[in-house]
Amino acid sequence: MYIGAIDIGGTKTIVGIVNESGKILYKEQFKTNINDRELHFKTCSEMLFYCLSTLDLSVLQLVGIGINMPGMVDNKKGILIKAPYAGWAGTEVRSYFQEATGVKNVYVENDVNSCAIGELHFGYGKTYKNYLWMTVSTGIGGAIINEGKLLRGGWNCAGEFGHLKVEYERPFLCPCGGWGCLEAHGSGTAITKMVKQEIAKNPEFSKLFESVNLSTDAVGCAILAREGNETACSIYKKAAIWIGRGISYCVNILNPDAVIIGGGVASSLDLMIDHIRQTIETNVISTLLGFEIKTTMLGYEAALLGAASLILEK
Amino acid sequence: MYIGAIDIGGTKTIVGIVNESGKILYKEQFKTNINDRELHFKTCSEMLFYCLSTLDLSVLQLVGIGINMPGMVDNKKGILIKAPYAGWAGTEVRSYFQEATGVKNVYVENDVNSCAIGELHFGYGKTYKNYLWMTVSTGIGGAIINEGKLLRGGWNCAGEFGHLKVEYERPFLCPCGGWGCLEAHGSGTAITKMVKQEIAKNPEFSKLFESVNLSTDAVGCAILAREGNETACSIYKKAAIWIGRGISYCVNILNPDAVIIGGGVASSLDLMIDHIRQTIETNVISTLLGFEIKTTMLGYEAALLGAASLILEK
Repeated sequence: MYIGAIDIGGTKTIVGIVNESGKILYKEQFKTNINDRELHFKTCSEMLFYCLSTLDLSVLQLVGIGINMPGMVDNKKGILIKAPYAGWAGTEVRSYFQEATGVKNVYVENDVNSCAIGELHFGYGKTYKNYLWMTVSTGIGGAIINEGKLLRGGWNCAGEFGHLKVEYERPFLCPCGGWGCLEAHGSGTAITKMVKQEIAKNPEFSKLFESVNLSTDAVGCAILAREGNETACSIYKKAAIWIGRGISYCVNILNPDAVIIGGGVASSLDLMIDHIRQTIETNVISTLLGFEIKTTMLGYEAALLGAASLILEK
Repeated sequence: MYIGAIDIGGTKTIVGIVNESGKILYKEQFKTNINDRELHFKTCSEMLFYCLSTLDLSVLQLVGIGINMPGMVDNKKGILIKAPYAGWAGTEVRSYFQEATGVKNVYVENDVNSCAIGELHFGYGKTYKNYLWMTVSTGIGGAIINEGKLLRGGWNCAGEFGHLKVEYERPFLCPCGGWGCLEAHGSGTAITKMVKQEIAKNPEFSKLFESVNLSTDAVGCAILAREGNETACSIYKKAAIWIGRGISYCVNILNPDAVIIGGGVASSLDLMIDHIRQTIETNVISTLLGFEIKTTMLGYEAALLGAASLILEK
């Protein structure tokens, strides 16, 4: 079985061909053209045909195309309602790709929802039927799998873990306009901000970055933290406590079997996991402890595999 | 249709006969005998027969019996796993009542879950398919209805709203042993505690209670607050902000159509609703605002009607 998968993110897009076992047969990655949505969709469609030709496949061999959008989606109508980062709104995604490719079976979903559904088909969904999926990346997004099915909520917007308040006394401003949101305290962007603030006031920490030519961001900070630098460790500890608070709310409310973490910051989970667990132990009622915390089984390709899995859901 | 309903709470028990429209045909209320569980179950069974005889009904006319327990329940097996307040554990509830009454169709559920299911059949469930049910009483409990069905979580314990952390800086101790839980800050018990603390340090406030012979608890404080007393209002305002924080977490995670509040403190919701709404407006991402906050349509009898509704769920 061949599935077309298109993962359109706020900054990058991946187009690929995936089989029913979740194997990526071929893929191409390129920059998202947020300034010209029509042109970007055209590029995605052309890239899908290019992937097919590379594999010596015809578009007629595709059972369907799954598409992720970085925002609010009406999955029934196949419409992107709003993608704040890209500045897109009210876009008929399904009908565009149906026409451009001739494939009728096209399914559109929010990218974090797709990750959670991808995990269901190709990852920990084989072990857990009730879990939370949390993307910790530039921002923080979430999705909930309840009894093996995506929980959508009243208007398809459940899982806004990034905007849970985790800090009331000394809150940071969030891109949403609110204060103290998890996204403003525990995301990659938040970690980078803390790194830059520390560099500005701590010349020794600043010199360390210069001397080893590290990027002054979450990634550079993770390298220093792994080498045992205390300031770098303390930045990750702070983020971990805030992430732990956010997870604790979700666990007290949902009683999940597992919390699965994906996104760029997931690769630094080793620096945070002890502090996350400690925070959870003091913030979750004891009857609900015993759930697992895992990094996604789908790795960097979680969203692309998620897009493909949409076709298996239907 | 005649349904037997038994609502066993930590302090009081109500036994009644309810019809399929949610009308209570007859009921009796009495104290829960937590010291002798066997004897209390026997009393419940006898009281059920008494209710039937009062209505000139035979037990053969019952389509089933729904039973609430004040703790963790294995609803499939009909067993009470643990009721911390009563000190009961590992009790075969279904089989006891099947034997004692001869009725085969017996269903056992946690009392807050029952309230949410009762609302589904007899109350706002006619309007909303995705809602949270929150009991604000001696403690705070919760339950989630997702697409018209109770969300159970990994091991049937979802909805622990009472143990969401709402205060990190100056947290109060919760009966669960944790600090800063919603139950420790927003329950009737928490309000009463604040009243007593204020009385201890504020002689004018103390005299006010004495002069009008008010009980020094949440109920007495509500009467003073309705008369415009600033100290009493500020106590309810504090509780409201904490309740608002708890609701905000639930809304960001679940995107409900409505939040339905029951329990004793629900009758003081008028004193808190503005502050609850203001807190929600600053703590919930704007796309998820627009849900309704309601007090239960089932009133004081929510749990008894919930017990009856279990039979309609099956």
